[in-house]
Amino acid sequence: MRKIFLARSLLALLLLASAAFAADPLPSWNEGAAKKAIVSFVEQVTRQGSPSFVPLAERIAVFDNDGTLWAEQPMYFQLIFALDRVKALAPQHPEWKDKEPFASLLKGDLKSALAGGEPAIFQIVMATHAGVTTEEFEKIVRDWIATAKHPKTGRLYSEMVYRPMVELLRYLRANGFKTFIVSGGGTDFMRVFSERVYGIPPEQVIGSSGKLKFELRDGKPVLVKLPEIDLIDDRDGKPVGIQKHIGRRPILAFGNSDGDLQMLQWTAAGGGARFMGIVRHTDAAREWAYDRQSSIGKLDKALDEAQAKAWTVVSMKDDWKTIFPPVNR
Amino acid sequence: MRKIFLARSLLALLLLASAAFAADPLPSWNEGAAKKAIVSFVEQVTRQGSPSFVPLAERIAVFDNDGTLWAEQPMYFQLIFALDRVKALAPQHPEWKDKEPFASLLKGDLKSALAGGEPAIFQIVMATHAGVTTEEFEKIVRDWIATAKHPKTGRLYSEMVYRPMVELLRYLRANGFKTFIVSGGGTDFMRVFSERVYGIPPEQVIGSSGKLKFELRDGKPVLVKLPEIDLIDDRDGKPVGIQKHIGRRPILAFGNSDGDLQMLQWTAAGGGARFMGIVRHTDAAREWAYDRQSSIGKLDKALDEAQAKAWTVVSMKDDWKTIFPPVNR
Repeated sequence: MRKIFLARSLLALLLLASAAFAADPLPSWNEGAAKKAIVSFVEQVTRQGSPSFVPLAERIAVFDNDGTLWAEQPMYFQLIFALDRVKALAPQHPEWKDKEPFASLLKGDLKSALAGGEPAIFQIVMATHAGVTTEEFEKIVRDWIATAKHPKTGRLYSEMVYRPMVELLRYLRANGFKTFIVSGGGTDFMRVFSERVYGIPPEQVIGSSGKLKFELRDGKPVLVKLPEIDLIDDRDGKPVGIQKHIGRRPILAFGNSDGDLQMLQWTAAGGGARFMGIVRHTDAAREWAYDRQSSIGKLDKALDEAQAKAWTVVSMKDDWKTIFPPVNR
Repeated sequence: MRKIFLARSLLALLLLASAAFAADPLPSWNEGAAKKAIVSFVEQVTRQGSPSFVPLAERIAVFDNDGTLWAEQPMYFQLIFALDRVKALAPQHPEWKDKEPFASLLKGDLKSALAGGEPAIFQIVMATHAGVTTEEFEKIVRDWIATAKHPKTGRLYSEMVYRPMVELLRYLRANGFKTFIVSGGGTDFMRVFSERVYGIPPEQVIGSSGKLKFELRDGKPVLVKLPEIDLIDDRDGKPVGIQKHIGRRPILAFGNSDGDLQMLQWTAAGGGARFMGIVRHTDAAREWAYDRQSSIGKLDKALDEAQAKAWTVVSMKDDWKTIFPPVNR
């Protein structure tokens, strides 16, 4: 009898909890057009008998990472990781003292280091992301992400994620969506924290990547990261990455910059109900405010197309009650 | 009251059904060492409190396709598809009449056509797998797989799958495994039938693939298949494909040939409980018998390593009650 009572109480609690969840699945979102559009879309595609009903297997949602799920100022966090690695590796590379972009970097002159443009960035990325095994790289990133702090907020980088977006990911999964990251960032870099921070397992992380080489070292197989690009998962590369990894067109896509335009177009071009969303950085007080003129996360053409096609543009300032999660330390 | 009675009857039926399933999850497998090893492994990694318990998220199982999940004789089915496509496309390519390997192919002289070795096969594959959009290609494969018949059995190719392996896939998923295909076959080719035939969704199909190009055609985005190889997902390429798509080491791998050796080694080299299986073609009466001397699905080095390391070798003749599923037409 007591057991039955306990079981019933538990059931009642669960029902209450799920009712509370149903009441507001997105508590960090202000009531407004963006939240309404999201909830309405999810109800439309999940309600049995709805003309826009989408079977479970086809509920694919894709999210850019930098500037969409976590911040990207004053520069991409993975670039900060790379710069930290250059400093850590410098003792093993005495030749870097006289070789750009490393020489400027090591003097703390970031501007001169990056003046070389893409070739300079390529050299930095390859020097810090290749020549190690996938297991070694995973450990390096794990150590960095557990300790490195953001220069402005003093938070860990994994605490610079957007709380409303983490709620959105969870809300979608509770409604049978499979959530994927589709980002210009490095696949192996993001996978280290994506499951813990976003609830997205490594096999649902699509990013830029280098080539790998299988080797037997003393009979033990390893995969070595080569200094050769395989896929740049940005712009045109995003629909390519989606097709290669998922093989099914998403029905929901969220980005924040022109680098996400092709992914949004690819998502929009499918049949049936679709949701295309853009996170707009409008909050200089709580985050950063930038769009058409920014060198990082430039939002220009994609904003024009969003406005022309009535995609959902989320204003961080107006649509989000809070930006970052509370820090428990 | 009537409703409660109905609900209870339904529940009783479900329990009976699940008990029956629990009694033998692999009805097409003969009792023997292979079946015992599979069931024992699954119990070991799924039983709470077991020293070899593996959390849900890490239960990754990978399967080769040709010769492991479906047959591969008298030649890879995808090659038969390509030959059928050459014939279908010949009217649009009058130049093929004087150009090898197409000229021999169109005369029905397969041996001369393939005498050119890998470059000849590459030409055939590219002529039949590139130059179309991903959507066009999907339709072509869908039409072919719905109608083309195997030259020896007269079955549809999707009816040439191994029933015991389909049961194994289902059994693993019922125990929380995520099942993946990791095959030298083409990703886009296998995805067309993998969900229907194996219950494996497109995002869990890893195969060989060509490069893609994003284009806007009259404002509509398409992905064009280019005549350029991206990944050959065979031998060394299998662990590479696994890392690129899954980013987590499998705990179970099944193959049938030397092309699967590196995938098996990569799986074996992880910590904790592991299962490495090889399907051995030993049944000339019901399927085919071939191993060390075969040009298709050659099993030589991987068999030596399996024997040295006590991996599970499944004999089709001895371990399987039936090979193919019944045909309902």
